[in-house]
Amino acid sequence: MNPVVVTDVPRPVIGDVDRLAAYGVATVHEALGRIGYLGPRLRPIQDGARVGGAAVTALCWPGDNLMIHAAVEQCRPGDVLVVTSTSPSTDGMFGELFATSLLTRGVRGLVIDAGVRDVADLRAIGFPVWSAAVSAQGTVKATAGAVNVPVVIGGQTINAGDIVLADDDGVMRVSAADLASAIRLSQARAAKEEASRAAFQAGELGLERYGLREKLAALGVRYLTAAEYAAVAEGNS
Amino acid sequence: MNPVVVTDVPRPVIGDVDRLAAYGVATVHEALGRIGYLGPRLRPIQDGARVGGAAVTALCWPGDNLMIHAAVEQCRPGDVLVVTSTSPSTDGMFGELFATSLLTRGVRGLVIDAGVRDVADLRAIGFPVWSAAVSAQGTVKATAGAVNVPVVIGGQTINAGDIVLADDDGVMRVSAADLASAIRLSQARAAKEEASRAAFQAGELGLERYGLREKLAALGVRYLTAAEYAAVAEGNS
Amino acid sequence: MNPVVVTDVPRPVIGDVDRLAAYGVATVHEALGRIGYLGPRLRPIQDGARVGGAAVTALCWPGDNLMIHAAVEQCRPGDVLVVTSTSPSTDGMFGELFATSLLTRGVRGLVIDAGVRDVADLRAIGFPVWSAAVSAQGTVKATAGAVNVPVVIGGQTINAGDIVLADDDGVMRVSAADLASAIRLSQARAAKEEASRAAFQAGELGLERYGLREKLAALGVRYLTAAEYAAVAEGNS
Amino acid sequence: MNPVVVTDVPRPVIGDVDRLAAYGVATVHEALGRIGYLGPRLRPIQDGARVGGAAVTALCWPGDNLMIHAAVEQCRPGDVLVVTSTSPSTDGMFGELFATSLLTRGVRGLVIDAGVRDVADLRAIGFPVWSAAVSAQGTVKATAGAVNVPVVIGGQTINAGDIVLADDDGVMRVSAADLASAIRLSQARAAKEEASRAAFQAGELGLERYGLREKLAALGVRYLTAAEYAAVAEGNS
Amino acid sequence: MNPVVVTDVPRPVIGDVDRLAAYGVATVHEALGRIGYLGPRLRPIQDGARVGGAAVTALCWPGDNLMIHAAVEQCRPGDVLVVTSTSPSTDGMFGELFATSLLTRGVRGLVIDAGVRDVADLRAIGFPVWSAAVSAQGTVKATAGAVNVPVVIGGQTINAGDIVLADDDGVMRVSAADLASAIRLSQARAAKEEASRAAFQAGELGLERYGLREKLAALGVRYLTAAEYAAVAEGNS
Amino acid sequence: MNPVVVTDVPRPVIGDVDRLAAYGVATVHEALGRIGYLGPRLRPIQDGARVGGAAVTALCWPGDNLMIHAAVEQCRPGDVLVVTSTSPSTDGMFGELFATSLLTRGVRGLVIDAGVRDVADLRAIGFPVWSAAVSAQGTVKATAGAVNVPVVIGGQTINAGDIVLADDDGVMRVSAADLASAIRLSQARAAKEEASRAAFQAGELGLERYGLREKLAALGVRYLTAAEYAAVAEGNS
Repeated sequence: MNPVVVTDVPRPVIGDVDRLAAYGVATVHEALGRIGYLGPRLRPIQDGARVGGAAVTALCWPGDNLMIHAAVEQCRPGDVLVVTSTSPSTDGMFGELFATSLLTRGVRGLVIDAGVRDVADLRAIGFPVWSAAVSAQGTVKATAGAVNVPVVIGGQTINAGDIVLADDDGVMRVSAADLASAIRLSQARAAKEEASRAAFQAGELGLERYGLREKLAALGVRYLTAAEYAAVAEGNS
Repeated sequence: MNPVVVTDVPRPVIGDVDRLAAYGVATVHEALGRIGYLGPRLRPIQDGARVGGAAVTALCWPGDNLMIHAAVEQCRPGDVLVVTSTSPSTDGMFGELFATSLLTRGVRGLVIDAGVRDVADLRAIGFPVWSAAVSAQGTVKATAGAVNVPVVIGGQTINAGDIVLADDDGVMRVSAADLASAIRLSQARAAKEEASRAAFQAGELGLERYGLREKLAALGVRYLTAAEYAAVAEGNS
Repeated sequence: MNPVVVTDVPRPVIGDVDRLAAYGVATVHEALGRIGYLGPRLRPIQDGARVGGAAVTALCWPGDNLMIHAAVEQCRPGDVLVVTSTSPSTDGMFGELFATSLLTRGVRGLVIDAGVRDVADLRAIGFPVWSAAVSAQGTVKATAGAVNVPVVIGGQTINAGDIVLADDDGVMRVSAADLASAIRLSQARAAKEEASRAAFQAGELGLERYGLREKLAALGVRYLTAAEYAAVAEGNS
Repeated sequence: MNPVVVTDVPRPVIGDVDRLAAYGVATVHEALGRIGYLGPRLRPIQDGARVGGAAVTALCWPGDNLMIHAAVEQCRPGDVLVVTSTSPSTDGMFGELFATSLLTRGVRGLVIDAGVRDVADLRAIGFPVWSAAVSAQGTVKATAGAVNVPVVIGGQTINAGDIVLADDDGVMRVSAADLASAIRLSQARAAKEEASRAAFQAGELGLERYGLREKLAALGVRYLTAAEYAAVAEGNS
Repeated sequence: MNPVVVTDVPRPVIGDVDRLAAYGVATVHEALGRIGYLGPRLRPIQDGARVGGAAVTALCWPGDNLMIHAAVEQCRPGDVLVVTSTSPSTDGMFGELFATSLLTRGVRGLVIDAGVRDVADLRAIGFPVWSAAVSAQGTVKATAGAVNVPVVIGGQTINAGDIVLADDDGVMRVSAADLASAIRLSQARAAKEEASRAAFQAGELGLERYGLREKLAALGVRYLTAAEYAAVAEGNS
Repeated sequence: MNPVVVTDVPRPVIGDVDRLAAYGVATVHEALGRIGYLGPRLRPIQDGARVGGAAVTALCWPGDNLMIHAAVEQCRPGDVLVVTSTSPSTDGMFGELFATSLLTRGVRGLVIDAGVRDVADLRAIGFPVWSAAVSAQGTVKATAGAVNVPVVIGGQTINAGDIVLADDDGVMRVSAADLASAIRLSQARAAKEEASRAAFQAGELGLERYGLREKLAALGVRYLTAAEYAAVAEGNS
């Protein structure tokens, strides 16, 4: 690992990030062809938060939060802090004092592939967090790491300045270069979902709406009554 | 796997299912001799929901929700949709659009041994879900599966038309043939619990109420003061 | 295992325990030099509870809650019941009837390295619980265990009469002999945190406050602009 | 749970079971349309064993092997003992003395969704075992269970008298009613695999042999040179 | 944590430890009433090793093996090194160079609740290891810990100078004060097992040998033929 | 995901890859500053294999091995096939027929973040595999994926043409651009390790060799005799 702190990272236009974030992680993820989701292991410590921002990344040694301190200085309004460690750890690397510092800098939230603590306080002060664990176990400040280098969480590479979106469905990464198209695609997808919603409320079936009845037939799926099925099942159970 | 959609599955009388569901999963599970619990891996995405219904089952390929579309058509008022996959998966196979469709059909909730997404929306529209994961990762519609065949979740076989009960303690399955006796046994157990509750509030101990003092003695459990125990422990630590 | 029930265990002064508990698990854990935390596996079934008390311990056979009944009798006002099993289990060993009994005895809560059930009721009656699982699966009352012997959860040994603290960050154990110093150290730590909080709100960085800028330099951490880093990264990617 | 020991269970013809077992779990599983596999959680404690037999099932309370003793009496030459517990457990419910007893009765091996111990001895005396854990933790003999009732492991229901096959790829269940067709289908599949093996050794590709080149095209998969891909990737990274 | 290295720890007589180790972990664990087993998570990296020795303990920060270096100096012939970390870690804290150093000091093996690496070399030079993981990820030497203080692994407290036994069934701890009685009890248990082995080879059943037939009857276990059971099962399935 | 098959990927010089592989994963990982390790979750299905090669990557849908067929065609002598899926899966996506095909093409082995089957055959024909699971569960060939795009396993991005090294300690990735320096650094590290090995065999301690005695003192680590420590521990236990 190269022990560096990268400064002056270009950020996307935050107003555009906010427009994208409003669509929600699941919709944006679909709209972009299902890329960038950080997986089901990261869970929110609160219900109902939805944030978007530019990633400031911190790569720490397990049990050591030294580089989070270095990362705080690199944070600007509209950023989301993204933290991981060089090997798996559940330690509580982040707590309410860090959040207080970040709130004064206009940071929108934290994504961390490790543990957090002071979660009652974090909820109280309204600083949203997505983490892999909650743990009171604190950390030292002894070993070098890196800030604003690419980090990998849940199989996704997050570069400094990438867009990070998070809500109750989890966390995803969007390339800043894709921001304009992501908004356009998400808008289109949301419109399509809205039309489907109305259709479903009116009683239409997905089988018709998505043309799946033919697909089922092509795949050889047969329809049997319960009585017919019972006769079949008895034969080969 | 036999790629079939089984139709016209007989259902239990929904009024009776509602009467049973009101006792709660833990009480019914005890009343029936501890059979049918789907295990601690399925968790509610909301607090405080309690539902009962007739199972419509869907068996899907991992990462593929085609058969959920086929299952929706088989759902009637009073049903609970039960979904699993042929091998383990956390993908978000189900979201708010499916729930919208099911709500228009009078379905009471979803039990899924895989992931769901749009959980903020699901909570907002009041569609209760018990799942093994939350994940924004979507799925394709490419591979055949089956609807209303027996599925297994948490070691329990769930047949189409079985009764499914779910609340904050998890999910259980009751055979439709056992419905009448299940109500009777649950009623008896609830009455017994109510009597025990009153006794415990009055200060009685479980040791007396359940005759356990004699059992402890028969098993050779001795009572020692802390001082006596310290003397013993020092000898063999 | 020695099948004993130890009685007359000395307790710490409960007023002092309450003063300590008010600082919260994360602060006390730091103040004491990071000892006694039971790890991230135990999670609260409710949000926002914070309790402290004297440990009454129960060591049970997996799938068997006989010894919890014996333990209830040993509980006094100000106690916290601490339950574990001789090998891993998720069974719902504890439910609302036990809680009712314990509430009448003035017990503050339950810490259990296994499962609980009736969680909706437990929340409703206000009995706080930290557990490793939620499960409707009940247990038998057939096998001897022990009460008020030392038990180990999450790598921490908990003796009867030890202080147990629990909140949204998890559970920790404090030796009764350390109570006075724990209060003093926690008070000092809380004061220090309060000063740091004010400083961070005023915009000071942890890098300055904790003297970390020099440490980063000593560890060889370099600052590069994004442009400089891109040049470096291209060379060795 | 119904506390019964079921006797006089019909068994399949053991010579036919042996013929089926020789094809191996992976081949038989494919031949039968991918049903009956007990999943990747059960692992052999030895390399290279391959057995088949008729299932004698034991359903035990966690931490309690009483019903294994009852099951041993029900075992005959050609059987495989299949053990599970009513809730998850890793305890060492089975060891070398049980194996000695079973070897004298002509039993072919053990499949257990819990722990075993004495594994060095089990390897030495040549008694094959597939288990979910290895653990020296012993068990009591205190609680009723059942023998030769249906049990569920890894989502598969195993009835007494069902065929159980196990090798380095894991364990599967075959219905006795399917034995003749399973042999025929497995033989056909093995022949097909042998032909494919020869073709692959001669350099043919699966793309041609299975007609996948057209499928890739139909699914929209494009072929790009590394240079072309680099140009595309740069545009949207 | 108190950052100390404790020296001059009293050891048990190694010849007696060897006599105890020869009985194997499962037998000694039973003989001592099932106390001291470190659980199924620690697995050997080799087959067939069986060792006993006096514990030298090292408590490390996660991702940091500084204290193993301090522990090596405290090791004498007949010792077993026991390593854990203050929070969970899979890092490869130990490799072949450490083993080389320990072999020159007459150390019998390593028990580590974290990762090891160089496992091919460790097997080649015959240094037995029981670990929670294998990982090539190395560690730093930056943070203080402790040597020869009590450590907890798998719920067991291991003090410096305690006896540690390990074989293919896992690892256990025996108090040095119990050594003489442990040998006597293990000898008795081994003799009893030998008698049972002979009886089982002669065809006796555990049901008779342990008097379990009466117990099954007392617990209400009924014997049904398969035909009788089928009739019952049909009624309530 | 972009459904592409990338062809004509540049490879490193295979003779140089072999020279690097000979140092072993742990040594190369250290030599390169601890970057590129795929983590402890991938385990070999055989003991003692050590391979290096150029990565051909396949990104598959869970439960679907279509893209492995496409990847085989892209493999050349000296390659290592690297397979992952878009969401977690344990299915047996790869077996002996694939290995037969790859052996005829001179491929050195498989790294797969999913399951494999036919493991007895794979060992018999000498095709080395590192996988996340063993499972007989087969897969379909229905959904598009990609070949030779970057994939992420264990937090490491692997590009087509990257160097992959694997042995009993796991799997790592080395950038082709770093090959020459990796050999040089590994050679230097191996020489240093050889010198340390000789020193340790001669009885030198790591404490002296790495100058750690001073570090321990600087960190405040004190040396106490067991008697002194007992006095301290009594005071604050």
